[in-house]
Amino acid sequence: MNVTIQGYLDDKKKLVDYQLIQLLKMAEAPKQLKEAMLYSVEAGGKRLRPILMLAVIEALNSEISKGIQPACALEYIHTYSLIHDDLPAMDNDDLRRGLPTNHKKFNEATAILAGDGLLTFAFECLTRAPHLEAEQKVWLVQALSSAAGPAGMVGGQIEDIEAEGADLNLIALERVHQKKTGRLLEYAVMAGAVIAGADAQTKEKLKMFARHLGLAFQIQDDILDVEGEEERMGKPIGSDEGNKKNTYPKILGIEGAKEQLAAHFEKALDALEDAKINDTALEGIARFIIERTY
Amino acid sequence: MNVTIQGYLDDKKKLVDYQLIQLLKMAEAPKQLKEAMLYSVEAGGKRLRPILMLAVIEALNSEISKGIQPACALEYIHTYSLIHDDLPAMDNDDLRRGLPTNHKKFNEATAILAGDGLLTFAFECLTRAPHLEAEQKVWLVQALSSAAGPAGMVGGQIEDIEAEGADLNLIALERVHQKKTGRLLEYAVMAGAVIAGADAQTKEKLKMFARHLGLAFQIQDDILDVEGEEERMGKPIGSDEGNKKNTYPKILGIEGAKEQLAAHFEKALDALEDAKINDTALEGIARFIIERTY
Repeated sequence: MNVTIQGYLDDKKKLVDYQLIQLLKMAEAPKQLKEAMLYSVEAGGKRLRPILMLAVIEALNSEISKGIQPACALEYIHTYSLIHDDLPAMDNDDLRRGLPTNHKKFNEATAILAGDGLLTFAFECLTRAPHLEAEQKVWLVQALSSAAGPAGMVGGQIEDIEAEGADLNLIALERVHQKKTGRLLEYAVMAGAVIAGADAQTKEKLKMFARHLGLAFQIQDDILDVEGEEERMGKPIGSDEGNKKNTYPKILGIEGAKEQLAAHFEKALDALEDAKINDTALEGIARFIIERTY
Repeated sequence: MNVTIQGYLDDKKKLVDYQLIQLLKMAEAPKQLKEAMLYSVEAGGKRLRPILMLAVIEALNSEISKGIQPACALEYIHTYSLIHDDLPAMDNDDLRRGLPTNHKKFNEATAILAGDGLLTFAFECLTRAPHLEAEQKVWLVQALSSAAGPAGMVGGQIEDIEAEGADLNLIALERVHQKKTGRLLEYAVMAGAVIAGADAQTKEKLKMFARHLGLAFQIQDDILDVEGEEERMGKPIGSDEGNKKNTYPKILGIEGAKEQLAAHFEKALDALEDAKINDTALEGIARFIIERTY
């Protein structure tokens, strides 16, 4: 299973990478701006969100050619959010994926504009996607702007900054995560369903799948963070007094977090079974998300 | 004429101001983010772009209720661009319209996110606009993202930064202006035409109107800048060696700039006459743009 899904992920990643770069290269933009946008897009990543969208379309027996441009739009949004998050006024990170962050490679003004440019370009991409009805495009723009905007990712980002140093309980933590990362993962799944023309019932099941997958994704992220940090520090840090970051392991302990992870994974698989689209790549992607080590 | 158009502008500004604030207040967003977005939106401005869109709809005898939400979306985009332009890494301005800039009132991270939030929210607004067909919404999202994105405003912004200190000729200066401000003004006019369901010929004339109006707007902006600066400095600055900013008066002299202004104004009015929509508020708005002192 793991060998198969890895091959699937690799294939789809290649497809997405190629289109992400092609669309941007063909876009009209001043040289330095295009270079800066391409730099962060080319820096790569797992491309989980776009792959998830394409996998839903395939699981529903529709054509992925309809989903490629919307998948790219979603990844541009994700990329812009990383560029802005890394800025000195935000997380002030010098490195991302082993490379200088956008504002380190270029400069702060360019990084702000590259982020703004990718965010705006994402919506243009959606409206230019081939093989889609106008109603589908309107749905996609509305759902993406809602998931990425003040009610979603941007809102979660500011709540995350505000929560730094405060002790969140599980409900508050899940609310922040739902906005910061959950909404965009949910969008990936639901966009696939809308593009494939899924019926209302299937959409409902897929929404459950997406919710649990999003939470599982975030819990695994937190576990990886803590275990990675422990490895680096050579000591357990779960109960560290100086640990200001709100994470699942901090609230539930590492074992409690792993139990929650397994529970959400099971519920995600149940939802796929209810929708009768288990035994597709979606199951493998869910498994990859909870078992991944990066 | 001027009394009438001032009344028209005031009325429309009130309408736009009210809707801009209502839509944002109803939006789902964390408290501090909403406060920061509202702060810059409430700081006001002439609301020229949204008013222009509504005036085109009226001139074409359609209902402005169709245009109010798209008009607000455009103003949110304009507002986000001001917030990001004022950031320390960009123009580093402490004041805008006599008030502390967003990052001074709140902080840099909040200002970046408030800008991102407004930009994203603008597209959601467009898709939720009442009384419009899906095809019209797709056109609006595509045209707005193109006008505001890498090929338009964001691209013009980076070219403007790059051109600082360099001597641009008239053609290069117009290209930067066309991207930085012209594309959004053109969008305002063309969005009005699409919302009103104008025919192809009328759209063509309105595009000419918008082009010349945009250039007139920018020339008057430059003239006001130079004259305002001269008043403040107590000496003419047009030929100042230390003047690094590329403006029409710097290239053409103040008289040459005024001649160009008058020529573009005439051509804008000619286009209205060709479209048989002269003698509407559009003529007054054009006159206001070239005669304004702020």
